[in-house]
Amino acid sequence: MATRRFTLGFDYGTNSVRALVVDIATGEEVGTSVHNYKAGVDGVIMDPIDPNVARQDPKDYLDGLELAGRGAIQAAKASTQGFSPDSIIGIGVDTTGSTPMPVDAKGMPLGLDPTFADNPNAMAWLWKDHTSYEEAQAITAKAAKTRPHFLAKCGGAYSSEWFWSKIWHCLKVDPEVFDAAHTWVELADLIPGVLTNTLAPSKLKRSVCAAGHKGMFSADWLGYPDEEFLISLEPRLGRIRKSLPNVAYTAGERAGVLSEEWAARLGLRPGIAVSIGAFDAHMGAVGAGVKEGTLVKIIGTSTCDVAVASKAKGLPDVPGVCGIVDGSVLPDYFGLEAGQSAVGDIFNWFVRNCVPADYWSEARQRDMDIHELLTEKASRFHPGESGLVALDWNNGNRTVLVDVRLSGLMLGQTLQTRPEEMYRALIEGTAYGARVIIERLEEYGVHIEEVVNCGGIAEKNDMLMQIYADVTNRTMKISRSAQTPALGAAMFAAVAAGTQEGGFATVEDAQAAMGGLKDKQFVPIPTHVEIYEQLFAIYKELHDAFGTQAYTGNLYHIMKNLLDLRDAVRDRKIS
Amino acid sequence: MATRRFTLGFDYGTNSVRALVVDIATGEEVGTSVHNYKAGVDGVIMDPIDPNVARQDPKDYLDGLELAGRGAIQAAKASTQGFSPDSIIGIGVDTTGSTPMPVDAKGMPLGLDPTFADNPNAMAWLWKDHTSYEEAQAITAKAAKTRPHFLAKCGGAYSSEWFWSKIWHCLKVDPEVFDAAHTWVELADLIPGVLTNTLAPSKLKRSVCAAGHKGMFSADWLGYPDEEFLISLEPRLGRIRKSLPNVAYTAGERAGVLSEEWAARLGLRPGIAVSIGAFDAHMGAVGAGVKEGTLVKIIGTSTCDVAVASKAKGLPDVPGVCGIVDGSVLPDYFGLEAGQSAVGDIFNWFVRNCVPADYWSEARQRDMDIHELLTEKASRFHPGESGLVALDWNNGNRTVLVDVRLSGLMLGQTLQTRPEEMYRALIEGTAYGARVIIERLEEYGVHIEEVVNCGGIAEKNDMLMQIYADVTNRTMKISRSAQTPALGAAMFAAVAAGTQEGGFATVEDAQAAMGGLKDKQFVPIPTHVEIYEQLFAIYKELHDAFGTQAYTGNLYHIMKNLLDLRDAVRDRKIS
Repeated sequence: MATRRFTLGFDYGTNSVRALVVDIATGEEVGTSVHNYKAGVDGVIMDPIDPNVARQDPKDYLDGLELAGRGAIQAAKASTQGFSPDSIIGIGVDTTGSTPMPVDAKGMPLGLDPTFADNPNAMAWLWKDHTSYEEAQAITAKAAKTRPHFLAKCGGAYSSEWFWSKIWHCLKVDPEVFDAAHTWVELADLIPGVLTNTLAPSKLKRSVCAAGHKGMFSADWLGYPDEEFLISLEPRLGRIRKSLPNVAYTAGERAGVLSEEWAARLGLRPGIAVSIGAFDAHMGAVGAGVKEGTLVKIIGTSTCDVAVASKAKGLPDVPGVCGIVDGSVLPDYFGLEAGQSAVGDIFNWFVRNCVPADYWSEARQRDMDIHELLTEKASRFHPGESGLVALDWNNGNRTVLVDVRLSGLMLGQTLQTRPEEMYRALIEGTAYGARVIIERLEEYGVHIEEVVNCGGIAEKNDMLMQIYADVTNRTMKISRSAQTPALGAAMFAAVAAGTQEGGFATVEDAQAAMGGLKDKQFVPIPTHVEIYEQLFAIYKELHDAFGTQAYTGNLYHIMKNLLDLRDAVRDRKIS
Repeated sequence: MATRRFTLGFDYGTNSVRALVVDIATGEEVGTSVHNYKAGVDGVIMDPIDPNVARQDPKDYLDGLELAGRGAIQAAKASTQGFSPDSIIGIGVDTTGSTPMPVDAKGMPLGLDPTFADNPNAMAWLWKDHTSYEEAQAITAKAAKTRPHFLAKCGGAYSSEWFWSKIWHCLKVDPEVFDAAHTWVELADLIPGVLTNTLAPSKLKRSVCAAGHKGMFSADWLGYPDEEFLISLEPRLGRIRKSLPNVAYTAGERAGVLSEEWAARLGLRPGIAVSIGAFDAHMGAVGAGVKEGTLVKIIGTSTCDVAVASKAKGLPDVPGVCGIVDGSVLPDYFGLEAGQSAVGDIFNWFVRNCVPADYWSEARQRDMDIHELLTEKASRFHPGESGLVALDWNNGNRTVLVDVRLSGLMLGQTLQTRPEEMYRALIEGTAYGARVIIERLEEYGVHIEEVVNCGGIAEKNDMLMQIYADVTNRTMKISRSAQTPALGAAMFAAVAAGTQEGGFATVEDAQAAMGGLKDKQFVPIPTHVEIYEQLFAIYKELHDAFGTQAYTGNLYHIMKNLLDLRDAVRDRKIS
C-alpha cells in the first residue's frame, strides 16, 4: 500500500474557523475541528446603535489557526491508520471577504496592538460591515465619470462591503487608526502571510481573488486603481495605494513555505507548501467541482455563486455580477462571482422573530429543529397556493442590483396566512433571487448547464432544493462534501505542493481525485415550473419596481394576479 | 325622586350579541349581558377550503335575543335600585351588515327550516363573506354602463360584502336555496321584525340604513334598483326585487311594538316601542356623539367610520366612500359610512401567527396580555425608526378603494427587524388607512374637526391612539361608553318611545342626555407629525401603486427613503 498523503485546509467563516485534513488520493476527510471566535456575538463585534457595524478581532483568527489546526490533526490521528502529521504535504486557506484590516509596518494587525485595544475601527472589517455605503456610492459615482472600466468588472457598482469603501470610511470616522495603518490587508492574505512568515509588506503575496473581486485590481490597468483616481476621492488614499503591490497571485501558487514557528505550533513539518489564499466561495466552488457550465451555489447565511468562463472565448462585462477576475477561481479561466446578500440569515431571522409559541412547543415535543418543522408544514402547500411573494432583500441585494440600500418586502398576506406560508415565501424569494443571477449570466453568454449546491441548508432541506429546481427549471445537485470551502482549500494545498511532493499539477487533477457529488438530486417538476414561471414574473416586476430606476409599469395587477393564481391552484387541488 | 326610565339596546356583533339596559336620563349603564354564538368558530361558519366563506346560524340570533336580553335585565335588577323591567320603555337594535339571509313567505329564515339544516347557503351571509366578489364586479361593471348614479352613492363600486352580490352568488351556487327563498332580509330588519311580530314581508319595515348603504336603495330612484337593471344582471333577480318594498325607515321611528310572545320571553311589558334597526356602526356613532364635524371611528376587528353632513348644504358624491344615505344615521342629515376592512383583525392575526415564543413567556411571567407587551416594546421606538411601512389590506380595502382583491404588504424588513417593530408598522398602517378616509371626506367638503373613537382597542391602547393623532394631525377623543353601539341602540329606543312614554323627541336630545366623552384625549406631537408626513407619503404611493390603475410612478426611492429616514431618526435620538 502506497504512502497516503494529506493536505490541511483552513476555512475562515463568519463565526468560526474550520480546519480539515483530507486524503488527497480519495478526498476522504479524515479529521476536522472548528474553533468558534470569542469576541462580540459569535465572533462579530457589533454596535448597539448602528446595525451596519460588523467587525472581528484578529486575535480570534490567530487563536483559531492554532487551535483548529491542532484539533484537526489530532482528529486525523485518532481516526485514521496511516496518518501522521508528517504526511501532510501542504496547507490551503480560504476566508470571508472582503474582510480587510489595518496593519502596521511589519504587517501586524493594529487590532493586536494594545494601543488600539477595544477600538472596533482597528479590527478586521468583516464582509458584512455596511457602514461605508456612502463611500461606496461616491466611489461608484466617481468611477462612472472617470474610470468606467473599473466598474464594468465589478458589476456596475462598487460595494460598501469592499476594500476601498471600508478604508475610506475608516479614514473619515477614525483618522487616528487610518494614520497608524501602514497598509490594509485582506484576511485571505493575512493567514498565508502568518503561516509563511511573509507578513512584511515587501514580502506579502496578495491573492488575485481578493484583490480582483474586492480591491478593483486588474492586470488590465496594471494592478489596483491608479493613485490619481484614489486621490480624486480623497488625497490621503494615495498613501495606501503606494503601499500596495502591482502583482497578485492565483490560489494554487505558493504564498511561501511553513515557518519554523508555525510548524511547531501546529505540529507539522516546516517547509511544506502554503497556497495563496482565496475567498471561501471561490475555494468552496472548486471543492464542489466548479467547471465551465457548472454554477456552484454555496448556500449559508448568504450565498456565493461562482462560475468560470474560458478565457479563450472571451467574455463581455456582465452588469451586476460583482466580479469577473482572471484566475480568481481556476487558472486560465475568468472567475465570476455573484451572490445573494442573505439566504440562511433570512430564515434564521424569521424563526427568531416571527414563529409563534405553539410551533416551538410542537417542535420541542416532536424533537425537531424549528426549521424542520416549518419545512414539514410548508411542504403541504402547493406552489402559488399561499398568494404570497417576498423579496429577499432583508440584507440588501448583492447581485444583480449591487445595492445595500434595499430592504425586505412581503406581499399577499391575508388574515388566514400562516407562519409556514411566510417561511415558504421567503424560501421562494431566495429561489427567485437565484434565478435572476442565472438569467443574467446566461444573457451574457455564460451558459449554466448544472447547479451544484453546497452548505448545510442544501444538504438538509429537500423542500428548498426542490423549490430551487422548480423555480430555475434546472436540476439541483449537491456536493458530496459537507465542507467544500475547506475541501477546496485542501485541494489548492495539494496543487501548491506540486507533483514533486506527491501533490497535483493542476486544480482539475485535484478536483478529479478529491471531489464528487451526492447521489441525491432534485429534478424540476413540470407543473410546479409552470406556476413558478408566473410567480417569478411577479417577483421580477417587484424587483425592477423597487430596485431599478428604469421601471415605470403599473403594479395594480400584482395582488390580483396572486389571488387569482391562489384560487386557481386551490380549485385544482380540490378537483 | 322622579321615576327612572330605561331602555334596552341590542348590539349584534360578529361573534356575540350584547344587551344593555341604560338609564335614559343619565346614560348610566345599569345592566349588560353578552351571549356568544355557538355555531362554527366563535359564531362564524367557515369553509375548510374557501377562505371567503363566512356564514351565521339564525338560531344563534334568536337564542341570543332571549338570553342576552334576560341577562341584562337580571343584571340591572341586581345592581340598581329603582329599576324594574316595567321601567323599560323601549328597545333598539343594531347589527352587523350587510348580513342578509334568505327567508320564507312568512319571513322566517330558511336557516331555521330543517330542510336546509347545515346548509351554509341557507344561513345568514355575514358581512365579511367575500364569496361573491365576481358578482360584485359584474354589478359594478353593469351599473357603470347603465346606472352610474347607483354607483355614485356607494363610492364608485359595489362590494362583495353587500346584499345583491350575495343574493346573486347564492342563486349561482345553490339555486335550490335561492328558489326556496321568498325574499332576503337583513339581520338589522329581522330582529325588530321578530320582536314586533312583523316578519311577514307585507308587514316588515326595512331600515333605510341597511337598504341605503348596502341594497342600493334611494328615494332618488324610488327604492331599490329597478327590476329592469336587476334582470339585466340575471333574470331571476327580478323576482327578488318584486318582493321588496319601495319605502324604508330611519332608526328612531317605530318598527312596531313588543309582541306578547317576546314580552313574555324577555320579561318585559308588551306594547313598548321597538325602534327600526340600523347597523352597529351607525348606532355606535350616535352613541359616541356623531354630529356635523365629528367623525366617529368604531375600532374593532374592522372599523366603521361614520360622519353626517347637513342636507341643507348639499353634498357631492364622494368617490370610494361606501355609502351616502339620507337619514341613515340621523334624521335630516346625510349619513356617510366609510371603513377599514381589518384593524383589530390584523393585530390578532399578527399575534397568533408572528409573535415568537419568548414574547409569550415574558407576557405570561409579567401577567400581561400579549398586545399589551408588544405595545410596551413598540412604544420604545420613535416614528420612522424601524424603516418599515405596511399596507393595511390583509382583508382588502373598503374605503377608498372598495376592493376585496387586495392583500397585505410589509416593506422595509432587515435582519434586525423585531416583532414589536412589525406590530407597530401594522398599527401605523391602519392609521394611514384612517387618514386616507379623512382626507377623502375633506376633499369633498365634509370637514372633520374632531375624531371620537370607540371600541376596546381605542380604550386600551394609548400608543395606538397617539399614533392615530400623530398620523392624522388631529386630536383623538374617546367615547365615554365602552359599548357605544348598544348605547346608540338604547338612545334610538328612547326616541322610538317618544316623549309621551317619557322618552325623547329627537336623537340629539337623547345624545345630550345619554352620551359623553372620556377625559383622556390624545393631542398630536409636532415632531411626530412631521415624520409621519413623510411616512404617509410613502404609504400613499404604495396605496396608489398597488390599489389604483392610474399610478405609473417610480418606486425606486421607497426603500431608500425609509432607510434614510430611519438613519436620520436614529442619529437624532443619539444626538
